[in-house]
Amino acid sequence: MERLTIGKETLKKVDGKAGDAVIKSLEEIAPDVGKYIFEFAFGDIYNRSGLNLKQREMITITALLIQGDTSSQLNVHINGALNVGLTKNEIVETFIQCIPYIGFPRVLNAINIAKEIFKKN
Amino acid sequence: MERLTIGKETLKKVDGKAGDAVIKSLEEIAPDVGKYIFEFAFGDIYNRSGLNLKQREMITITALLIQGDTSSQLNVHINGALNVGLTKNEIVETFIQCIPYIGFPRVLNAINIAKEIFKKN
Amino acid sequence: MERLTIGKETLKKVDGKAGDAVIKSLEEIAPDVGKYIFEFAFGDIYNRSGLNLKQREMITITALLIQGDTSSQLNVHINGALNVGLTKNEIVETFIQCIPYIGFPRVLNAINIAKEIFKKN
Amino acid sequence: MERLTIGKETLKKVDGKAGDAVIKSLEEIAPDVGKYIFEFAFGDIYNRSGLNLKQREMITITALLIQGDTSSQLNVHINGALNVGLTKNEIVETFIQCIPYIGFPRVLNAINIAKEIFKKN
Amino acid sequence: MERLTIGKETLKKVDGKAGDAVIKSLEEIAPDVGKYIFEFAFGDIYNRSGLNLKQREMITITALLIQGDTSSQLNVHINGALNVGLTKNEIVETFIQCIPYIGFPRVLNAINIAKEIFKKN
Amino acid sequence: MERLTIGKETLKKVDGKAGDAVIKSLEEIAPDVGKYIFEFAFGDIYNRSGLNLKQREMITITALLIQGDTSSQLNVHINGALNVGLTKNEIVETFIQCIPYIGFPRVLNAINIAKEIFKKN
Repeated sequence: MERLTIGKETLKKVDGKAGDAVIKSLEEIAPDVGKYIFEFAFGDIYNRSGLNLKQREMITITALLIQGDTSSQLNVHINGALNVGLTKNEIVETFIQCIPYIGFPRVLNAINIAKEIFKKN
Repeated sequence: MERLTIGKETLKKVDGKAGDAVIKSLEEIAPDVGKYIFEFAFGDIYNRSGLNLKQREMITITALLIQGDTSSQLNVHINGALNVGLTKNEIVETFIQCIPYIGFPRVLNAINIAKEIFKKN
Repeated sequence: MERLTIGKETLKKVDGKAGDAVIKSLEEIAPDVGKYIFEFAFGDIYNRSGLNLKQREMITITALLIQGDTSSQLNVHINGALNVGLTKNEIVETFIQCIPYIGFPRVLNAINIAKEIFKKN
Repeated sequence: MERLTIGKETLKKVDGKAGDAVIKSLEEIAPDVGKYIFEFAFGDIYNRSGLNLKQREMITITALLIQGDTSSQLNVHINGALNVGLTKNEIVETFIQCIPYIGFPRVLNAINIAKEIFKKN
Repeated sequence: MERLTIGKETLKKVDGKAGDAVIKSLEEIAPDVGKYIFEFAFGDIYNRSGLNLKQREMITITALLIQGDTSSQLNVHINGALNVGLTKNEIVETFIQCIPYIGFPRVLNAINIAKEIFKKN
Repeated sequence: MERLTIGKETLKKVDGKAGDAVIKSLEEIAPDVGKYIFEFAFGDIYNRSGLNLKQREMITITALLIQGDTSSQLNVHINGALNVGLTKNEIVETFIQCIPYIGFPRVLNAINIAKEIFKKN
């Protein structure tokens, strides 16, 4: 099966409708970026063996929290974390584990995004 | 048991001698920072339930990779990740999972540090 | 007096109602993070001798400006800076001193937040 | 001709009305920052020989994308890039070239800002 | 022609021997990362139309300067910039254009790396 | 008195010989950057009223600590902080105040640089 198809299936499994919306938002001015997200991020990387999807989403939400200015992406991937089976508590604990390494501000930002998502789930 | 004692035991479990060296390096001009690392980082945070030490170290090495300018800390915590039972492959996969979120440069930096550590283990 | 009580009093002195709101917003999904802000950030760190609260808030707003993606926290701590006695002019000068070290964009972001706060004070 | 006058003319050429709005927004609490943007950023730097304005704006939008938390500034300078003659396609390609070096999140943020601007142009 | 072959040829054109050394350094513990650099960074991205290699390297060295903690990568890509035809003066001007957006420290770091490279060229 | 002269005198007062070395290192490939450091950073910014040099250096070392990848600049400005009259204890307290806002890694990096400088002073 080719990278694009594999990537589309994995993105659907992880991010569901929110992932579709990201790809769709790119169609107008940068459709190839959507293709790279399918092929490279989800086709090549997420499908690797060695870590399961729960571990990969735990790493992803950590990466987004630490980097900052990623509220849209945290929105998609906190939902993704829930989709692949991380519990709300595991998500919050992941954020708390980041405090000694990045301080409180970025962690508070991530918690505020999670709070809104958890209300709807 | 008090936070300081708990923290010292956890730091020993995670970082072994490298952790001791960090604390010792602080004694001369900022001993309280060593105390906060024991009490807050390792006493309060690492000892929380909800995630195990393997998960916490996976989050930590992700946080350090993404933040950048953390080569000493990555050195300590890649060793820490091995100490608590992550395999070399899981550590490298953690770094690879970061590529779509931070690009290649930070990931290459982390891999180079891991390579030196893996040679000795 | 214990860390939690000390921290609560210091947070009140520095951030006033805005600090309360941050802690309250954490109650629902991450109450322990509120506890750590009281105990560690305000109980342990802000209460240290060696620098006064005006100096500590000057350092804090600098840290938040440089880090970026901290508009909520800058909001709280520009108010905090006024609460502990920094003048509006000292706050703006602190931001201007950052220009050679981080460039204009982060400084403009901080000035825009300050402008809204200064209108109400 | 003095730096202030040169800077004002260059800022007008690059950023048009959006640049004026930035300077005006500074008048109330930090007018000197507006003066430094005119004199230093646009008087000293943008007027240097060696690169033309299209190249300088390509560098600027790259810098803003990579740094993050710069949505207002990206807004001004994507418009600026169009003003000095970069095509929409060149702007999007500039963002795509950043993917291997900073990952997808920052690039998606920049594309979303460009999409809104391109609709109006 | 497939992505891997295209990528290898482009990497050779841009980074020459330094690029080979990066890929070789990955063989031991993370060979797939080398494959992704060939296929994705150089096969997919650098080969896109719309910008030429001189423009792409100008964007790349800007991205690396702004991100920070990228001295190895700046080393490779300042050489790459020379390889594809940017002059020493254009490289230094690219760095100078970054001052208003990121301040002096990152720019000084990049200039110091360039200085060592320019001595040998 | 003109900006260049004012800046040179202020740089000498703050950074002493280390500042001279930075400017000298720029002469070969980017002398204008040295001129901008004199004129803009030290002529325009450091000479403003509203904050004294001790406060300005406190802000500067905070900015450098938070930004990261600034070890050369921290080296210059920790010395600068001592030159303008900050005590060793005030410098360490400045770093400790940053822990809640950026976490331990960046603070440990800054403390390690200070430790080497304090040995010689």
